[in-house]
Amino acid sequence: MTESLRLEDAVAVLKRTPETLNSLLAGLPDTWIKATEGPATWSPYDVIGHLIHGERTDWIPRARHILAGETRPFEPFDRTAQFRESAGKTLTELLATFTDLRRQNVSVLEKMNLGDEDLNRRGLHPELGDVTLGQLIATWVVHDLDHIAQITRTMAKVYRETTGPWSAYLSILRDRQR
Amino acid sequence: MTESLRLEDAVAVLKRTPETLNSLLAGLPDTWIKATEGPATWSPYDVIGHLIHGERTDWIPRARHILAGETRPFEPFDRTAQFRESAGKTLTELLATFTDLRRQNVSVLEKMNLGDEDLNRRGLHPELGDVTLGQLIATWVVHDLDHIAQITRTMAKVYRETTGPWSAYLSILRDRQR
Repeated sequence: MTESLRLEDAVAVLKRTPETLNSLLAGLPDTWIKATEGPATWSPYDVIGHLIHGERTDWIPRARHILAGETRPFEPFDRTAQFRESAGKTLTELLATFTDLRRQNVSVLEKMNLGDEDLNRRGLHPELGDVTLGQLIATWVVHDLDHIAQITRTMAKVYRETTGPWSAYLSILRDRQR
Repeated sequence: MTESLRLEDAVAVLKRTPETLNSLLAGLPDTWIKATEGPATWSPYDVIGHLIHGERTDWIPRARHILAGETRPFEPFDRTAQFRESAGKTLTELLATFTDLRRQNVSVLEKMNLGDEDLNRRGLHPELGDVTLGQLIATWVVHDLDHIAQITRTMAKVYRETTGPWSAYLSILRDRQR
């Protein structure tokens, strides 16, 4: 049995993510935006494209799938769609797209008027098996927070050498790549 | 020899941190603000107090110390001052104080008009020994990013159980505590 979700707590975070990302990234030089943690890791620019793909294909579509009582598994999520879909777009465009999509999706979520019974409804994840709507929404929140952490970790590592002896105190410089 | 610092890149991040933290945290319920990762770890509320203490006693005072040609070591930094200094203050007050102090400090930094020669000037850290002004400023930036990551990691762990089977995909839920 997992802990139950208070929907207003989840929505409070989901609503804030676009502005957090705008405040953190809008107008920054490419030194920060295009930095990665090494081969096969994502830049802040890549992450915003990934978040956009999630708004389009993951969270709300899967919530609807559960509420429709679908017994087939969810469509698998494409974790690298952003490399195709972000092509040619500026970070400013991507941030604006993400902001729009998130606003629409939070509005859809609020209009679903979900009660505890709805949050306990189940869907079938293609790899993980049985999951609930509440778990899906909690995952949406943690996924946002995980990617904000990833962006700041990636940016921090731009200065891995530049901090000199202080790097001994800055554990983020040695954190996992992903 | 460490990499040299482009001051405008550092300032671009330093300037954005207050708005990032405001966007992420202002108005959130205590579920998020007062959460910790366990005993002896910091809540988002604690982190903002720590950042305030850094603005007052660490970055600019140490930059001035180096530019004054001081040969004595820097004053040690008090890593737990916030537990005393934040007492009785709301998060809103702390965010406003941090925003003001950071604006003032970035303005002081810009007025220092630092060139490469200045960035290579040395000071004595009480534990780390010889450090440069450029390394100090890079550390200021990474310290911001590290604490933003810490805040999002701490918030994510509020939903450690709530994500159910998805926790297998959310590596942030298993990241270090600190």
